[in-house]
Amino acid sequence: MSEIILSINAGSSSVKISVYRVSEAKSQIQTQLAEAVVEGLTAPPAKLKYTRGDKKIRGKELEDISTQEDAFRYILDHLTDDEGLTELKNKNDIRFTCHRVVHGGDYPRSQVIDKETYHHIEALSDLAPLHNAPALSIVRAVADILPHAKNIAYFDSSFHNTIPEYISTYPIDQSIAKKNGLRKYGFHGISYSFIVQALSAHLGKPSEELNIVALHLGSGASACCIKNGRSHDTSMGLTPLAGLPGATRSGSIDPSLMFHFTHSAGKPSRSSSEKLHITQAEEILNKNSGWKSLTGTTDFGYISSSDRYEDQLAFHIFVDRITNYVAPYFTKLNGKLDALVFAGGIGEKGDKLRTAVVDNVKCLGFALDAKKNREEMKHVVSDITADGARYKTLVVQTDEQLEMARGVIEDKDRFVGKR
Amino acid sequence: MSEIILSINAGSSSVKISVYRVSEAKSQIQTQLAEAVVEGLTAPPAKLKYTRGDKKIRGKELEDISTQEDAFRYILDHLTDDEGLTELKNKNDIRFTCHRVVHGGDYPRSQVIDKETYHHIEALSDLAPLHNAPALSIVRAVADILPHAKNIAYFDSSFHNTIPEYISTYPIDQSIAKKNGLRKYGFHGISYSFIVQALSAHLGKPSEELNIVALHLGSGASACCIKNGRSHDTSMGLTPLAGLPGATRSGSIDPSLMFHFTHSAGKPSRSSSEKLHITQAEEILNKNSGWKSLTGTTDFGYISSSDRYEDQLAFHIFVDRITNYVAPYFTKLNGKLDALVFAGGIGEKGDKLRTAVVDNVKCLGFALDAKKNREEMKHVVSDITADGARYKTLVVQTDEQLEMARGVIEDKDRFVGKR
Repeated sequence: MSEIILSINAGSSSVKISVYRVSEAKSQIQTQLAEAVVEGLTAPPAKLKYTRGDKKIRGKELEDISTQEDAFRYILDHLTDDEGLTELKNKNDIRFTCHRVVHGGDYPRSQVIDKETYHHIEALSDLAPLHNAPALSIVRAVADILPHAKNIAYFDSSFHNTIPEYISTYPIDQSIAKKNGLRKYGFHGISYSFIVQALSAHLGKPSEELNIVALHLGSGASACCIKNGRSHDTSMGLTPLAGLPGATRSGSIDPSLMFHFTHSAGKPSRSSSEKLHITQAEEILNKNSGWKSLTGTTDFGYISSSDRYEDQLAFHIFVDRITNYVAPYFTKLNGKLDALVFAGGIGEKGDKLRTAVVDNVKCLGFALDAKKNREEMKHVVSDITADGARYKTLVVQTDEQLEMARGVIEDKDRFVGKR
Repeated sequence: MSEIILSINAGSSSVKISVYRVSEAKSQIQTQLAEAVVEGLTAPPAKLKYTRGDKKIRGKELEDISTQEDAFRYILDHLTDDEGLTELKNKNDIRFTCHRVVHGGDYPRSQVIDKETYHHIEALSDLAPLHNAPALSIVRAVADILPHAKNIAYFDSSFHNTIPEYISTYPIDQSIAKKNGLRKYGFHGISYSFIVQALSAHLGKPSEELNIVALHLGSGASACCIKNGRSHDTSMGLTPLAGLPGATRSGSIDPSLMFHFTHSAGKPSRSSSEKLHITQAEEILNKNSGWKSLTGTTDFGYISSSDRYEDQLAFHIFVDRITNYVAPYFTKLNGKLDALVFAGGIGEKGDKLRTAVVDNVKCLGFALDAKKNREEMKHVVSDITADGARYKTLVVQTDEQLEMARGVIEDKDRFVGKR
């Protein structure tokens, strides 16, 4: 019997699903059979991007697809209807569905989602309602459409479970902090976990010996200090709002700022519901800030190449804030690191951004090879270090879907109840 | 005629006044004649500390002194009644009163306080009501009691007026940001200005050539990146709440945290009034957080030497957060700096803290001489650098009162209307 894994990455306006087959040799990394993305859920019509080997569909407009669940159902039909995808002809062939869940609270690793864990994840989503809701709607749909599949939750926060208490603790009333679970959690952990594995393979060094300053830079952006293969510090906090700015996210600001921005900071936002409590402040800081609020666009590629004053300002703000994390993480590793890593959409494509960030920390011993930095990144790990630089700078094409599928192979026994 | 300057530093529970005489030679630094402090305004009975030469009063309990204005009036009487203080026998001898005002908005330098500037300062105090109110109450009292004196406001924010826009801009809606004045201002500027002057004298180098990573660490704490003698970046923001934690202040936290801490984050606090708008969140984060919320005490000396779990946690949190600013400021100076400076109550007395911070950045080229670090600091500038360290580490006994009085000498012509 063919065992198919679906890796599902649901964002606020898109759903991305990668299809893998479990290979015979357990330890082998499985190949991706196909990948489908439905984008533009919040700006209809939604569009499909589909790739299976050489077969590609781009920008196919979809009718009546406006929620994550719609997108999931559509992709599922598309996959089983694709005659070329011989490995997946029957929905019952899907053995595992992996879900990227942003906020996992205290969960230190992936979890099979049963009734109990579902309700637990739903409850802790109160800390990140804007971020967990998309995944949860698909988890419910899977239970309905794919009763034979096992739902596994992969949390963006789990990787950061190793952050020491003196870094994760906020200096606030600890009785309320403990009761309400108010501490630094950190996110993008599935990506950071992928980065560790990728560097371990690239450098031929056990992951537990790797020290990395890693930057996951996309429309959501964060930095991570990886010590001996584990998270030691990261820029995001209780929620993904803290730390670096993003496409529509402010990042860290004066904690009193919102009360001077609007008198209704603490009032429920329009997206708030009986189940989801979102204040106006949280909505503004997550959805209406970041470089979109400075430039009018979320397209950092455009911003990077523009000469307009506000685009240049947004570019320099982002570079400055990134530097504010690279330097202390360097010292937290005591200057003993294997690489500075750029990953995520902007990290992988933004050669101008990489140049500016590395230039800001050149006194620490980083330098780029201008030509390598400009070239298209063709490998999972590309080395863009200048000759003679003290430290390596690498670009990693991170793959959260693959990391989740790998996790299934690794933890299969735990998931099917053998341990 | 003797020209007396009073330098007044009013905090939330204390008033400190230093008395100087304008020396004949304009450029000469004037000597302090006396210093009086009334402490414990929020924990009565208030107590007096007074020093004139060898004459010292310590812990004299005061009846019916509970406001900053009470304390100011008491100190004024005490000064004119002190027969040994021959230079100040008559209140009319007081020519200038200098007021440390925390938030100065866009004011790039000190200002004579007339009706117009008073109302302007009062209006911009909306950004920092908890911080500006004490000084303003004394400004009003001076106008009443000392009609012949000129009131000069020295702003903690002015020194940071040189911070580049890409550092001072928050990635939020810029129309509201500009309308409401929401940007990074920075504070402790009078102290940083003193530090620059002190290092210029100590190192025999013009202030405009000095690059310094400066730490003002007290019950309020901040870091400053000083490039060519001017502020290039600092840890505090729109208000003193951002950046490092303090005795009762959280420092930077996830901007959405307070909405998960209390449902009434945006509601007016009990200290709010018709004139002062303070939300519960601002009150909690400024007054009920910081190391007091972790340990029960504001006494960092006790915390540093205690073995209790929560004291050690608070100590390590503070050290960690300080490191998060030292390292990026080092890179912003491109590794070309004259010194790392510790100042402020904790910076000047906390040898254990200095050891821990410098140990965290040893890979950058800092190292302490253990013996020099433990000794009592007898000079304005004390060098505690280890032999062979690449960079100097200095302790500066900062003196905001003296810095203000010096400013009077320097800018006297401007204040009396000659330019």
